[in-house]
Amino acid sequence: MEHYSAKDLQEMDKIYRRNLVNSATGYKSASLVATVSEAGISNVAVFNSVFHLGSNPPMLGLVLRPETVPANIYQSMSATGSFTVNHIQRNMIEQAHQTVEQPDKDISGFEQSGLEEEFLDGFPAPYVRQSSIKLGCKYVNEYTINENGARIIVAAVEHIYFEEGIEMPDGWLRLEDAGSVVLNGLDGYALPELLDRFRYARPGEEIRSFFSSSKQ
Amino acid sequence: MEHYSAKDLQEMDKIYRRNLVNSATGYKSASLVATVSEAGISNVAVFNSVFHLGSNPPMLGLVLRPETVPANIYQSMSATGSFTVNHIQRNMIEQAHQTVEQPDKDISGFEQSGLEEEFLDGFPAPYVRQSSIKLGCKYVNEYTINENGARIIVAAVEHIYFEEGIEMPDGWLRLEDAGSVVLNGLDGYALPELLDRFRYARPGEEIRSFFSSSKQ
Repeated sequence: MEHYSAKDLQEMDKIYRRNLVNSATGYKSASLVATVSEAGISNVAVFNSVFHLGSNPPMLGLVLRPETVPANIYQSMSATGSFTVNHIQRNMIEQAHQTVEQPDKDISGFEQSGLEEEFLDGFPAPYVRQSSIKLGCKYVNEYTINENGARIIVAAVEHIYFEEGIEMPDGWLRLEDAGSVVLNGLDGYALPELLDRFRYARPGEEIRSFFSSSKQ
Repeated sequence: MEHYSAKDLQEMDKIYRRNLVNSATGYKSASLVATVSEAGISNVAVFNSVFHLGSNPPMLGLVLRPETVPANIYQSMSATGSFTVNHIQRNMIEQAHQTVEQPDKDISGFEQSGLEEEFLDGFPAPYVRQSSIKLGCKYVNEYTINENGARIIVAAVEHIYFEEGIEMPDGWLRLEDAGSVVLNGLDGYALPELLDRFRYARPGEEIRSFFSSSKQ
């Protein structure tokens, strides 16, 4: 096996290390986070750091690193208390990636990418129209990671939208049918195919597939 | 589109909501976290919450929710200061999932699943031998999320191992070639296939693929 030690990592070229470490920690969820400022200016950007925090009550977390996220996304999120999380689907990866670099502060990620904003059920922040799974979230709190200055945003999930027909009888969504993608590092988009889903095993039992035979 | 409001979510059956919310926040990284206690007892369990925190220095985060993770994993992690993160690959999803429920405190996730421990380069915590990408991590700090009692563990990535031939000239790893999987919710394992990888675009430029033509 190839091996990099702490010393190797420390002495490595910065861009090389960024690619390596982002990739080595595994695939990440691929989301478009959208906000609207108090002045009514909307924006949207790719995030690869949305994680599950709890379901009772429904909560998610995401990481904001100052150097990689447009500043107005964080400002709008904390000032208005609302934002949306929208899945990136296979047919919109190029548009989504257009939002990564936002050199012109006067042009929003929506304008830059051609993604369209959509307002639903009176929620203040815009959703991404093209996305087939979208969450309306309330900013609840933030924690600063002292070790590197990253902020963890804690949010309550208040609305869940998804296309009809992808929900299983127990609430689980067939993300494969929605075409949701994942990120490898900061720039690699990959499409997952379901191998299997397992039921919890009782002690001493073998685990069992949800399907009559494995799809693998 | 289907829609659940905050009120719907609040009144939902607990298991149903757990499946829905875990799935609706998107695919997650699928990792086996392994530890060894001060008494020398090792354990391993599936995590779907490893996220990237930074690459300079290399850091990752993970979420520990008391109700879903074996208590001795956290105890060993904080007491010894060392743990490993190992990718779950397509050929080991059934074994990996055997570690989810650990009813017998005297049987470790290694024994229960048939996954094998492996010690590398003097690092105190065991790696999972079968895994083809593995990280040696130092516990650095933890943050308690007051809203639901979840703990965020912050760790320094000190060792990165991966199989030969999957590293691109810029450090990015071809996770597809390693066969790394992702989790949909708590129990659905899916195998990603790369659609495309994009270079950063300069202002006013179209984004460009790393490949001469898109694989999509």
